[in-house]
Amino acid sequence: MSIRMYDIIKKKRDGKELTKEEIDFFVQGYTNNRIPDYQAASLLMAIYFNKMNKRETLDLTKAMINSGETVDLSQINGIKVDKHSTGGVGDKTTIALGPMVAACGVPFVKMSGRGLGHTGGTLDKLESIKDFKVELSKEDFFNISNEINIALCSQTANITPADKKLYSLRDVTATVENISLIASSIMSKKLAIGSDAIILDVKVGSGAFMKDLDSAILLAEEMVEIGIGFGRETIALITNMDEPLGYAIGNGLEIKEAVETLKGKGPKDFYELCLSLGSKLLVLAKKSSNEKEAREMLIEVVETGSAYEKLLELVEYQHGDIRYIENTELLPKAEYILEVKSDDEGYIKSMNAEEIGKCALILGAGRETKESEIDLSAGIVLNKKVDEKVSNGDVLAYIHGNDKEKVEEVKEMLRDIIKIGKKNEMSKKLIYGEVTKEKTKLY
Amino acid sequence: MSIRMYDIIKKKRDGKELTKEEIDFFVQGYTNNRIPDYQAASLLMAIYFNKMNKRETLDLTKAMINSGETVDLSQINGIKVDKHSTGGVGDKTTIALGPMVAACGVPFVKMSGRGLGHTGGTLDKLESIKDFKVELSKEDFFNISNEINIALCSQTANITPADKKLYSLRDVTATVENISLIASSIMSKKLAIGSDAIILDVKVGSGAFMKDLDSAILLAEEMVEIGIGFGRETIALITNMDEPLGYAIGNGLEIKEAVETLKGKGPKDFYELCLSLGSKLLVLAKKSSNEKEAREMLIEVVETGSAYEKLLELVEYQHGDIRYIENTELLPKAEYILEVKSDDEGYIKSMNAEEIGKCALILGAGRETKESEIDLSAGIVLNKKVDEKVSNGDVLAYIHGNDKEKVEEVKEMLRDIIKIGKKNEMSKKLIYGEVTKEKTKLY
Repeated sequence: MSIRMYDIIKKKRDGKELTKEEIDFFVQGYTNNRIPDYQAASLLMAIYFNKMNKRETLDLTKAMINSGETVDLSQINGIKVDKHSTGGVGDKTTIALGPMVAACGVPFVKMSGRGLGHTGGTLDKLESIKDFKVELSKEDFFNISNEINIALCSQTANITPADKKLYSLRDVTATVENISLIASSIMSKKLAIGSDAIILDVKVGSGAFMKDLDSAILLAEEMVEIGIGFGRETIALITNMDEPLGYAIGNGLEIKEAVETLKGKGPKDFYELCLSLGSKLLVLAKKSSNEKEAREMLIEVVETGSAYEKLLELVEYQHGDIRYIENTELLPKAEYILEVKSDDEGYIKSMNAEEIGKCALILGAGRETKESEIDLSAGIVLNKKVDEKVSNGDVLAYIHGNDKEKVEEVKEMLRDIIKIGKKNEMSKKLIYGEVTKEKTKLY
Repeated sequence: MSIRMYDIIKKKRDGKELTKEEIDFFVQGYTNNRIPDYQAASLLMAIYFNKMNKRETLDLTKAMINSGETVDLSQINGIKVDKHSTGGVGDKTTIALGPMVAACGVPFVKMSGRGLGHTGGTLDKLESIKDFKVELSKEDFFNISNEINIALCSQTANITPADKKLYSLRDVTATVENISLIASSIMSKKLAIGSDAIILDVKVGSGAFMKDLDSAILLAEEMVEIGIGFGRETIALITNMDEPLGYAIGNGLEIKEAVETLKGKGPKDFYELCLSLGSKLLVLAKKSSNEKEAREMLIEVVETGSAYEKLLELVEYQHGDIRYIENTELLPKAEYILEVKSDDEGYIKSMNAEEIGKCALILGAGRETKESEIDLSAGIVLNKKVDEKVSNGDVLAYIHGNDKEKVEEVKEMLRDIIKIGKKNEMSKKLIYGEVTKEKTKLY
């Protein structure tokens, strides 16, 4: 008997498990416009309420991968590693972590999409470097990867079109917040590109998609399970996104901070995150037998300068102007730089990362719609972070922007967002725990 | 702040109560095509899961009424009564009940839509009578009502367009089965036409929308509450639809049965239903102070022939050929009339009304799509009903049709549908109970 979309909706609505055939029918039909948006929307809402089990989620992921092209990385030598963050404010991790890992001899190759967000994605950030070319042919991508162990380029292939279509629909029908749908969306994009090992940075907190630890753990577990189900080594770290990562938020500003980090002068939290993710990656890639040793290797490539050299090499191979790295003063500069000063004293109690992200967006650092143009010079550089001591008149943050009014607007906003008071009783945590195939471990 | 459809979906998804403004925004926006189908579909599914409370259901009904025209019946004298059935097989009640009530001096005026179904609706049935005109101008409708206390016409006004659009969407997104949505859909159509009192015949059983008594009670309570909320006297009876009502299923065949019933020679169950509904209507219309007396009045108008005369009058006033009533042999006749005979003996245990309805549809008695043309002569006339004794060779039913193959097909089907066996332990019930403003009473 032929499958009907109506019956699939009704089945999920009634709390039953969908078969692989039904999931394939839905994903294929929706991608090919044979199933209308309204039927997909009602199924998504039924999934929101009745959830999908692990098997259904795996089949959904498979179906989304099969909806488009996949990229075979077997022409790149070695155990290829990939890293994915669920998204946060000031997250420039790839730009420092990639060169660190590559400098240790592990191929770090990444194809990224461009999305909407408070600041641009990795590709937008890299475009702050003059002439940096993010569009590479597959051949160039493979060659560069083999020669210098690192390449960062944009997706040219038609990867997971089903996910693109479904995500747009979920976005306007209040069906984003479902663990199975989130996990299959992220993992299908990752798995369509054939890296051997994946590390997931699942953010939790005010600036993250997951606002509480429990949801973040569930999401991490679901994604690791999917990765393992596809035969890829997959690990997740659950990390803090209550405040922005590092000090810099904004494309050019974050490149500068990544460069400083590779020179051993980066923010403590950001450097620590790179070391934690990186040491896991090195073990996954069998470059090291244990994380302690791996961490020492990573510290060494930073201290000897070889990680920084790797970034220069990456920029050079991707046609960028390395002088922008050697002298970060050349990176795009905003016309106005305003200080936000404290009119109180005590300790920084909190700074809602999402709110700060919105400030960056107002300044032009991100994309509100697909058509938005990013101002690569705009953003915010924090001068204090949570738990730091503050005196009256201390600079809390610098605002970089090219629109005087917006800079002033953000100044007012930041005064409210950055909360000063008594010292927090519990000091903040950077990494909450990790999820592996074997177990979920909270630190 | 302006309302956004996204927030309305999210709110209902999260189990919160929607405000009147939000419900109005949704219904107006959807009717005017400002809100896309996919957002409406996801809201409907969220309503399916999280339900609507009485206040929301009332506001939804109001919004649907306000989406189109309403009909003011104040030009018709007296307390106008209306009757609505949630739909069943062999349900020709209006055609007998209307003349009975009108013959008692109570204005019975009805504007009906045409829908899809196993057999046609009241209007289609009436069209079996040569030249019967169901399209009346408002003026004619009012005049006829005032002169003879009865008029049955089609909706010419643009009544509840929101409901039409929403119902079509629910139909393809598995969101029909929600009490609030069903109740508001039915009641908005009823309430848009200004009768003073409404009696609802909520069917329950294999051939009804509601398959179990609990759901039927809930639906009846919800609809009565809505009617009362709009200041209309509203009562519901919950009645059996496990087997077809009466013997005849099919448009012309049902007219014949209604005529026989008005002559006092109708099926017991059908006549009893008319008396039960009618006596309540007479009390609602203050024509009688109690149901016992009302029932006697109704029996009298049948026995004296004045109810039958009222039907003749109705047909005449609406331009129909009364000879078709005086001699029902003139009604459309099928080419083939086949007997279905029993090859077993015992008692009729059951005959699934929905399955029998499907047989009628196969014969051409109903509409599968809006464009289907109805064969007014086609249908089934039962010869035995549930709990009746059957001997080997007894005729169980007569099949009327014009397509030999289909008649044969239905013959095979009916043999399976009509189950013969030992006598049922519990004899069947016609009316399960009633729902009024004050209470729900099961008989």
